Amino acid sequence: MTQGRLFIVSGPSGVGKSTVLKTLLDRRENARFSVSATTRPMREGEVDGVHYHFITVETFREWIAQEEFLEYAEYVGHFYGTPKKFVEAALDAGQDIILDIEIQGALQVEKRRPDAVKIFIGPPSWDELERRLTSRGTNTPEDIQKRLVRAKVEVQTAHTYDYFVINNNVENAVRELDAIMTAEHCKPKERMELLADT
Amino acid sequence: MTQGRLFIVSGPSGVGKSTVLKTLLDRRENARFSVSATTRPMREGEVDGVHYHFITVETFREWIAQEEFLEYAEYVGHFYGTPKKFVEAALDAGQDIILDIEIQGALQVEKRRPDAVKIFIGPPSWDELERRLTSRGTNTPEDIQKRLVRAKVEVQTAHTYDYFVINNNVENAVRELDAIMTAEHCKPKERMELLADT
Repeated sequence: MTQGRLFIVSGPSGVGKSTVLKTLLDRRENARFSVSATTRPMREGEVDGVHYHFITVETFREWIAQEEFLEYAEYVGHFYGTPKKFVEAALDAGQDIILDIEIQGALQVEKRRPDAVKIFIGPPSWDELERRLTSRGTNTPEDIQKRLVRAKVEVQTAHTYDYFVINNNVENAVRELDAIMTAEHCKPKERMELLADT
Repeated sequence: MTQGRLFIVSGPSGVGKSTVLKTLLDRRENARFSVSATTRPMREGEVDGVHYHFITVETFREWIAQEEFLEYAEYVGHFYGTPKKFVEAALDAGQDIILDIEIQGALQVEKRRPDAVKIFIGPPSWDELERRLTSRGTNTPEDIQKRLVRAKVEVQTAHTYDYFVINNNVENAVRELDAIMTAEHCKPKERMELLADT
C-alpha cells in the first residue's frame, strides 16, 4: 500500500481557498480534509468526529503535553488543533490529507512533519483580491484594507512554500492543485520501493 | 512572459519512453523536444534544424571548446550534442523543452542547468520490461538479458532524479508527466514575481 501524503494549504482571506479545496476534494477520491479537535461547544447539526473532534479543555491540555498535535492555537477563548494520530492513521491507510491552515500553523506542522507539501494560494492581483473581499458584502472598508495589508504580509512568506497556486479562476487553481498532488506521488523514494518488490 | 522550464527525461531501453513522450507533446502545446546537433551525415528525408542541426566535426569541436553544449557524446564515430543556445532561446520564448537523454547526458546537463527537472521513467516490473523487450522481436535473448541488467543498474540512479514515473500504461504515464510539468510551473519564484507586478 502506498502511503498517503500530507498537504498544507494556506492563503489570505478572500482568495477563494475554500471553494477551490472543496472542488479539488470532489475530484480526488483519495484525498480528504483533516478533522480538527476543538474545545468549543458542539453546535446544532455538528457531528463529533466529522466536523470536529469535540474534546474537553483537560483532554486538550493533555494532548498538548503528550505532543499529540501537529499544530494548535487558541482562538477567541477556545482551543483548535490538528491531532497527529488521526492524520497518521489516514496517511497509513493511503489517504492524502489536506490541512487548511494559516501560516503560523503551517510552520508548526512543518517542524513535526518535514515531509508535508506546502502550497500557498495567492490572488491574481491585489485589485482582484480587494474586489473579492468587497463583493462579500460583509466587510467594512476599513476591514477590507486591514485584510489587504495582512494578505500582502502573508504573501511575503510564500517563498517558504513548495508551491504557489494563483487562483485566477477556480478551474485553473484546482487543475494546478490536482497536478501538484499527482506530481508529489511521483517522488522517487516510494516508486523505487514499488519496483524493488517485483 | 513566463520562462519555459527544462525537463530531462531518462529511462531504460524498452520502457516505452518514446511513445509516452510523443503522446505528452501532442497534449502540451507549449512543450517540445530539443533538437540535437550531430556530425553524422544527413539521411534522406531529414531536414536540417528539424531532425538535427547538421554541423561539421570542426564546428562541433569549436562548440565544445566554447562550452556551447549542455551535453554531448560520441556514438559509433559521430558526435551528438544538445546546443545551449537553441534550448535557451526556446526557454526565453516561454517554451518548455524536453531532453530525451540517458543518464550520463543527464548528469552533464544538470551541472550546467541545475534548474532542470529530472524525470526517470521506469517499468512497472522487471518481468514486464523483459516482456516488452522480447515483444519487439528484434533483440536476441542474449541482448535482452544485457538490456535487463543495464536497466537494473540504471534504475539504481533514479533516486537522483526529481521524479520517477512508472510506465504501467501510456495514458497513466502521460498523465503523471503532464502533472509534473504543470506542478513545476507552480514553484513560488516565478509566481511571486507575477504577483509583485500587479
